[in-house]
Amino acid sequence: MHTPALPSWSDGPAYRAIVDFVTSATTEGPGFIAPADRIATFDNDGTLWVEQPAPPQFDFLLRRWAKEAQDDPALASEQPYKAIIERDMAFFEGLAVQDPTVVMTLEKAMARSWAGTTPDVFEAQVREWVDTVKQPKFGIGYTKLVFKPMLELFDYLKANDFRVFVCSGGGRDFMRVFAEEAWGIPKENVIGSASAYAFTDGKLVRSDQMLGALALGPGKPEHIFAHTGRLPVFAGGNADVDIEMLTVASFAMLVSHDDAEREFAYTKGAEKSLAKAGELGWTVVSMKNDWASVFLEERAR
Amino acid sequence: MHTPALPSWSDGPAYRAIVDFVTSATTEGPGFIAPADRIATFDNDGTLWVEQPAPPQFDFLLRRWAKEAQDDPALASEQPYKAIIERDMAFFEGLAVQDPTVVMTLEKAMARSWAGTTPDVFEAQVREWVDTVKQPKFGIGYTKLVFKPMLELFDYLKANDFRVFVCSGGGRDFMRVFAEEAWGIPKENVIGSASAYAFTDGKLVRSDQMLGALALGPGKPEHIFAHTGRLPVFAGGNADVDIEMLTVASFAMLVSHDDAEREFAYTKGAEKSLAKAGELGWTVVSMKNDWASVFLEERAR
Repeated sequence: MHTPALPSWSDGPAYRAIVDFVTSATTEGPGFIAPADRIATFDNDGTLWVEQPAPPQFDFLLRRWAKEAQDDPALASEQPYKAIIERDMAFFEGLAVQDPTVVMTLEKAMARSWAGTTPDVFEAQVREWVDTVKQPKFGIGYTKLVFKPMLELFDYLKANDFRVFVCSGGGRDFMRVFAEEAWGIPKENVIGSASAYAFTDGKLVRSDQMLGALALGPGKPEHIFAHTGRLPVFAGGNADVDIEMLTVASFAMLVSHDDAEREFAYTKGAEKSLAKAGELGWTVVSMKNDWASVFLEERAR
Repeated sequence: MHTPALPSWSDGPAYRAIVDFVTSATTEGPGFIAPADRIATFDNDGTLWVEQPAPPQFDFLLRRWAKEAQDDPALASEQPYKAIIERDMAFFEGLAVQDPTVVMTLEKAMARSWAGTTPDVFEAQVREWVDTVKQPKFGIGYTKLVFKPMLELFDYLKANDFRVFVCSGGGRDFMRVFAEEAWGIPKENVIGSASAYAFTDGKLVRSDQMLGALALGPGKPEHIFAHTGRLPVFAGGNADVDIEMLTVASFAMLVSHDDAEREFAYTKGAEKSLAKAGELGWTVVSMKNDWASVFLEERAR
């Protein structure tokens, strides 16, 4: 049963559930899904790449804001600059639970960094981060720490006429910088939290406002419907903020981080989604047992 | 030079400009465009289908609101119901110039009709309209009045690795109902003015707010960038509200409605864009001279 399409997946219940669903979706019968409806959506942080010790975009933002606080010492008494200087990472955990004070503070800092700029300014900064910064545990760039089994799954789904989208609470424009090279996903298939832009004097200028809600929790189906006109039939996530997206899909898979040796072992932020998986029959993917290999590149040792 | 790819286009300057641009974009050399950047965007009303005597979505909305005013006579003294009952079409012209009072009145009426409903309610109403209502001049359904040369152009662009998007000031969700059958464009490639939806109690519910700006004028590049992460290299439109979208593209084409016999002859709402076309060297497509055939189906006589 082990087909060459998913070589990094070990034969097991997760692998078989995926292949059974896709086979059924593409075969005439009760499980058939019309090609037009074959929308697959995936979370990014923790689903497509390493999200420990913090989601990679945090590394990018924190470096930027640390630099700004260095350039303007008056910022040191304000959040989020204060938390960065004092290495108070607990402050940022408010984002995952959408604590309004933390969300507002971060939005304000983003506006300070980029409101009034054209997209190429942000893109060049993200590009530099991608090209130079290394993940602390693995010692290689973050975009090299994409999960190989997930890229194989993308190819397998595409070969079966699914359109694959990434939908992350992280920044849409952040992900779009590397989506094509790291995931083989065109920019227009990347959905995420985003700033609004205004077209003024012949150019796009970033505003200090968001476009729609954060793409977390209920924001995921909202953004996916707005973008695609449909809800996904196949969805993959790894955390409580993915529950709504996973619930609306016909097939839901939850990546379980249980591999301390090859990646990380943690359930923090995924307790409710793991419970839901049991309750609703979602496919739980054990990194330890279901993935024969984890990364595109071997760990730099 | 007349290739079979565009049989409804007459050989002439517009046809040749299109073929020259596409050939150059796909051939190594100074005009080459990387496949990733090959985004083509098209307006809908007047560019892809007949927009006289009024954009087809108006026909849909006016029928709906006339019915609501009939069911609730108290509405007869309020706008836009009053204008509909009195056949005061001048009232609605405020939309094209984004008169805030008119825009707000129409948004309020839309909210009255659909706020709090799930997407299937709206979709079923549009579907019924598509299936039953006939355009007054031609006597056939509006989606049968799509311009055949434009569909051939979509196929030609797609065959050359362009991704084709529609970006209309009209309703995103309205167009998505028929986009796949009428244009061969997947729902996710349809960009337009849209209501925000909230995911509540396990379902999507339409709000009384818009998501972002109207996709008119500067709203077109704003929506296109938000959706695709790029600006178009190829753009097609027919009116002043398309100017910003046409200006950002490497190749811009403007459909000129100069064919009173086969379609309509008018320049109203396109005066500035026609002037810009001359100024900036856009390709003006004369329906009369450049299109050997206009519609997918012949006029019902």
